Amino acid sequence: MYKLVLIRHGESTWNLENRFTGWTDVELTDTGVEQARQAGRLLKSEGFDFDIAYTSVLKRAIWTLWHALDELDRTWLPVVNEWRLNERHYGALQGLNKAETAKKYGDEQVLVWRRSYDTPPPALEADDPRSERNDRRYASLEAGQLPLTECLKDTVARVLPLWDADIAPAIRSGKRVLIAAHGNSMRALVKHLDQVSDEDIVGLNIPNGIPLVYELDADLKPLGSRYLGDPEAAAKAAAAVASQGKG
Amino acid sequence: MYKLVLIRHGESTWNLENRFTGWTDVELTDTGVEQARQAGRLLKSEGFDFDIAYTSVLKRAIWTLWHALDELDRTWLPVVNEWRLNERHYGALQGLNKAETAKKYGDEQVLVWRRSYDTPPPALEADDPRSERNDRRYASLEAGQLPLTECLKDTVARVLPLWDADIAPAIRSGKRVLIAAHGNSMRALVKHLDQVSDEDIVGLNIPNGIPLVYELDADLKPLGSRYLGDPEAAAKAAAAVASQGKG
Repeated sequence: MYKLVLIRHGESTWNLENRFTGWTDVELTDTGVEQARQAGRLLKSEGFDFDIAYTSVLKRAIWTLWHALDELDRTWLPVVNEWRLNERHYGALQGLNKAETAKKYGDEQVLVWRRSYDTPPPALEADDPRSERNDRRYASLEAGQLPLTECLKDTVARVLPLWDADIAPAIRSGKRVLIAAHGNSMRALVKHLDQVSDEDIVGLNIPNGIPLVYELDADLKPLGSRYLGDPEAAAKAAAAVASQGKG
Repeated sequence: MYKLVLIRHGESTWNLENRFTGWTDVELTDTGVEQARQAGRLLKSEGFDFDIAYTSVLKRAIWTLWHALDELDRTWLPVVNEWRLNERHYGALQGLNKAETAKKYGDEQVLVWRRSYDTPPPALEADDPRSERNDRRYASLEAGQLPLTECLKDTVARVLPLWDADIAPAIRSGKRVLIAAHGNSMRALVKHLDQVSDEDIVGLNIPNGIPLVYELDADLKPLGSRYLGDPEAAAKAAAAVASQGKG
């Protein structure tokens, strides 16, 4: 039997400002740092240890991992940074807050983008200053891989190749894996592991900074999963995420 | 022409307490964190960028790297953690302060251990609780590789294989390399690059948290090197290290 631990990053500055973040590289708040360190303390107190960590190329996930590793006394572990674990790309909505977005596109349309599995928000123009086309960290992507917007289905489609080619083989080889990621890249993994339907996955909310532990059988099928720590705190945090309604 | 940047970690808690640190895994002080961030800001303001970073498996160097990378907006760079970049192992002196050490072994003897290239301090007993034999991060070392003490000559001998097998090929392949290390693992690299004699290298003091930039020719021979920022500040910081007289 294998164990796998996922953590969504702690609170970011744009979580606070209620803006669509996507691939925008915003920082953790002080609360976010404390959530990350608390995640590390929880893992340590329950006896978890790891051999390798995976995270995105966005600093709110990277710093969450670093703070958690520090509490675990495992700052020296190998860390793999992968764009495939990035948050869902939020297209032309990136940087807008909820009120601005509703004003610009109408409440109903915004609800569709937030709740639909396969309808992406409007794409960034290729020359939009918010596009990542000149960002060095994506320079190695092949033509067509760099998104200008994503629906959750798109996010799932680019997360799973990393799972299949890299993370799953690492787990099967006996490595204890820790993943620090984002709301929607975690949804992609949870959807795959728990075989959640396209309809149900959009309603599943993942709290910031609370370790989600999977126990997996030899075929990497889940035997069970749970949030570490106080279950009520995890439920409250997930509800807070739901009420934000943000990517 | 290639560039290579080395940074010694920022001030640690045991630098402050004037204790022999060696492989003991102590934290940065607030001053040390600020030194690391300032190093990152300096590198950024002078237009440096990197493709890969190397550091030890000790958190004072790792956190120095992380803070510098954050200021460079490069938290997502690949980082290689290598025990070969660890500080010189200080044997049975690890944890002792200078006064205690002089009292126990005599001033003259302590001077020999500090200033000699090839006389190691007394070794840890294999069952000393300070030994790293049960430390997971060293579990993959081969028999005989885990030191119980080191003279600077020993440190040089275990740093250079990493240079030859890994760092030098990375530089030759065009990668811009940043190394965050320790006083004596940096001495090992400087000795090799600048062909410093065994006698002279022990008198060379490397300041905490100030980037040391090498320009290298196609054969990785130095065309020149300099500390970034205010030269007086670098000289003062090096003098402060000399007066500590610590490994």
